[in-house]
Amino acid sequence: MSIFTKKKENFMAWYLDVVRRAQIVDTRTEVKGMNVLLANGYEIWDRMKKMLDEKFYVTDHKNMYFPLFIPDKFLELESEHFEGFVPEVAYVTHAGKKKLENKFALRPTSETIMYHMYSQWIRAHTDMPLKVNQWCNIIRIDTKDTKPLLRDREFQWTEAHTCHVTPEEAVEQVKESMWIYGSFFDECCLPYLITKRPKYDTFPGALYSVAYDTPLPDGKTLQIGTTHNLDQGFAKVFNIRFQKEDGSHDYAYQTCYGLSTRVIAAVISVHGDNRGLIIPPYLAPLQVIIVPILFKGKEEGINKECEEVLKEIKKSDIRVEYDSSNKTSGFKFNEYELLGVPIRIEIGPKDVEKGGVTLARRDTKERIFVEKSKIVKAIKEAFDIITEELKNRSKTLLEKSITEVVAYDELESTFTDRNPGFVKTNWCGDEECADLIKEKLRAEIRGTLYGEEEEPFGPCIICNEEAKEVVYISRSY
Amino acid sequence: MSIFTKKKENFMAWYLDVVRRAQIVDTRTEVKGMNVLLANGYEIWDRMKKMLDEKFYVTDHKNMYFPLFIPDKFLELESEHFEGFVPEVAYVTHAGKKKLENKFALRPTSETIMYHMYSQWIRAHTDMPLKVNQWCNIIRIDTKDTKPLLRDREFQWTEAHTCHVTPEEAVEQVKESMWIYGSFFDECCLPYLITKRPKYDTFPGALYSVAYDTPLPDGKTLQIGTTHNLDQGFAKVFNIRFQKEDGSHDYAYQTCYGLSTRVIAAVISVHGDNRGLIIPPYLAPLQVIIVPILFKGKEEGINKECEEVLKEIKKSDIRVEYDSSNKTSGFKFNEYELLGVPIRIEIGPKDVEKGGVTLARRDTKERIFVEKSKIVKAIKEAFDIITEELKNRSKTLLEKSITEVVAYDELESTFTDRNPGFVKTNWCGDEECADLIKEKLRAEIRGTLYGEEEEPFGPCIICNEEAKEVVYISRSY
Repeated sequence: MSIFTKKKENFMAWYLDVVRRAQIVDTRTEVKGMNVLLANGYEIWDRMKKMLDEKFYVTDHKNMYFPLFIPDKFLELESEHFEGFVPEVAYVTHAGKKKLENKFALRPTSETIMYHMYSQWIRAHTDMPLKVNQWCNIIRIDTKDTKPLLRDREFQWTEAHTCHVTPEEAVEQVKESMWIYGSFFDECCLPYLITKRPKYDTFPGALYSVAYDTPLPDGKTLQIGTTHNLDQGFAKVFNIRFQKEDGSHDYAYQTCYGLSTRVIAAVISVHGDNRGLIIPPYLAPLQVIIVPILFKGKEEGINKECEEVLKEIKKSDIRVEYDSSNKTSGFKFNEYELLGVPIRIEIGPKDVEKGGVTLARRDTKERIFVEKSKIVKAIKEAFDIITEELKNRSKTLLEKSITEVVAYDELESTFTDRNPGFVKTNWCGDEECADLIKEKLRAEIRGTLYGEEEEPFGPCIICNEEAKEVVYISRSY
Repeated sequence: MSIFTKKKENFMAWYLDVVRRAQIVDTRTEVKGMNVLLANGYEIWDRMKKMLDEKFYVTDHKNMYFPLFIPDKFLELESEHFEGFVPEVAYVTHAGKKKLENKFALRPTSETIMYHMYSQWIRAHTDMPLKVNQWCNIIRIDTKDTKPLLRDREFQWTEAHTCHVTPEEAVEQVKESMWIYGSFFDECCLPYLITKRPKYDTFPGALYSVAYDTPLPDGKTLQIGTTHNLDQGFAKVFNIRFQKEDGSHDYAYQTCYGLSTRVIAAVISVHGDNRGLIIPPYLAPLQVIIVPILFKGKEEGINKECEEVLKEIKKSDIRVEYDSSNKTSGFKFNEYELLGVPIRIEIGPKDVEKGGVTLARRDTKERIFVEKSKIVKAIKEAFDIITEELKNRSKTLLEKSITEVVAYDELESTFTDRNPGFVKTNWCGDEECADLIKEKLRAEIRGTLYGEEEEPFGPCIICNEEAKEVVYISRSY
């Protein structure tokens, strides 16, 4: 019996357990929904930032930082956009004991303050494309059950906001964002479905919204990122106006996209097992841990060997540590398995004798002997194999998470007593039918597959009228 | 006549001008004291973070993130500590239109929320030393004149908070923090004085406070960092209690230290000139810019040469770009001088003929010819020379900023119609005398030189009684 609540039996209990035991988050702050991101969680987020910053760099995004406080009048300008956020917006009303003349909202997202600046920066078509990314904390006083990293009242995220000269460029930017996020999720070895949200579920003020949803082990799905084509909606409200090459004027075409520390929750949930975390090698803050297998009288030789192997690996770009503490090797094995370190190197008397080390994979527990001169090469090969296998596993997970359904009875039974992942079915496009799905099944239409037109394979699942599109339905976090 | 208000004639006008023109900060947010840190400013801060993170890493600090919201009851626990902050503390009272049951403070600093966690983490002496660093945004609704990066209502900072088993270890930690900050300031080539603040100016709840002050060109000084030995003051309030090796119990001994984006302001102020920024090479986000000197008919050859040189330099760890835009070379020269890029490489027909490039230093405007095969070596040598010279210049600046004064008349005249940098003089240690300095000169005692006992060279500058210590007085931002 594992120390953990078993993942398959009670996913949420397992998740909360592993987040606590692996010291990712500490919730004992006495501030509901605002937790401490502990060193282990912080390091994963820091790696994610580095991975994304590299992609932002090659695609000419610039990082900037905008104020946390949003003047109330900006929100009023864009009241349609903010309506959905209103109950969640935290308001600052006082400085010390003094009431402020005007209250400020804490950013639940930064469109308004950023676009207020953009309207001052953009004058001519030569000022675009403008691609700005912001790493920051976000405040949303969500009233639903908070869950560490899954639903927080304060969380860290990246939000990018772009401006373009033509609608075509905005469409291209949506695709670029999908490359950035898609390749990042791939490096995290996550399964995900990209769908175009239904019109009624589009980001307020946007032309269309694209979202990335990951199937979780309990059959619910988790939105781990979104991209919006904003067209000229915000530009008109915030007056982001420019002179075109021919001298005439137009409003900028905009896009925005964001993802948050929720991605950490997805990585933990998808890859972890009953021993703890499994972190994909290229994402792992610590990629290799060296553990000595000590036998009485042979400590010195083993220690020396470990130090040498450490030095050798450190010459490469592999992130490695040597645990020379006086805990037992069994304790150390459990510890680093809990933390999800992809590769463990064991060095015992037998390994030394044979002139090598034992390399153990965290994901499969597989152990192989490697000659000393080939360690770095073997580790890198293992990284690639593990990555490939985790990706394949996720591909299978995604495929298995999709159930095709044609008749309503079937849909209802699919959602009875369980969460079925994604249900692929047909829809007439009518919001009333979507409302019935919400009401009867506590599930929502995620949308249509992005970039791939799928032919309906039956009538609308609700009203039996002719279906317009194939949609994916799920319950979500 | 420079495009800038001259630095020597009107420092603050120059500073605001350069911050705006070099696109470090944009203040047009309509939120007083909360500005946009633009890409150029963000990149400098990002480099500073990387430099400090390396030092935190080798000294075993762990990065974590704590909530922005502080429960009001934590502040009440430590009311003495918070008293000074109270007028500056922003309070969140509402979520949407709903009043919150309990209001929350936005962190003006994180002692209370962090130590609340520490009290749950620390049980035994083996749980220490605990060294945690946090990178975050800080909110202080300062009522004084806000100035970008010098005095903001929201700013970015690093705050580290440590716990130790013995008071001696806390003293050692204070010294380690001084190594971290000191070596960082050195890499920024800044002049600074480290003083132990007078008792009455010690951080509330601390045993003693050490501060780092930089003399600015206008004769005022700027506090760019602080370290506090907290002893057991906070530990007793927050109950950070542990079992010692012998089984008895004690409260943890603590230290904390912080620095903020103010350091960017110091770098701009100290190094810049009437052409714009001068960024020390190892701090500069962009270290080398390649500018082609184009002549009709020779564009292609020059371009090819520039591309080759770019490729060659990129093989090293030097951060380099090639500006192939169709702006004039004169425009580009001005642009990169404004941004403070340490080295400009010019490649014109003559350089190509001679098989090399012209290397121009931003700080001295000196230009030398370098053979193509020796470019990387020459750049690295130039970095070291520039760094050394900027450091020497700062050393001289610091020395020149200190005036020794024995008599009160002299002190008064030193502060008449100007800001004199640091005035070194004698003090009896009495707070009444310090108050008179404040009142009569609008200046403050910074403190005594840290780690170096200086013998008084006269009686107390105010009361003429016997002096106990040599102190440094200045007006500050």
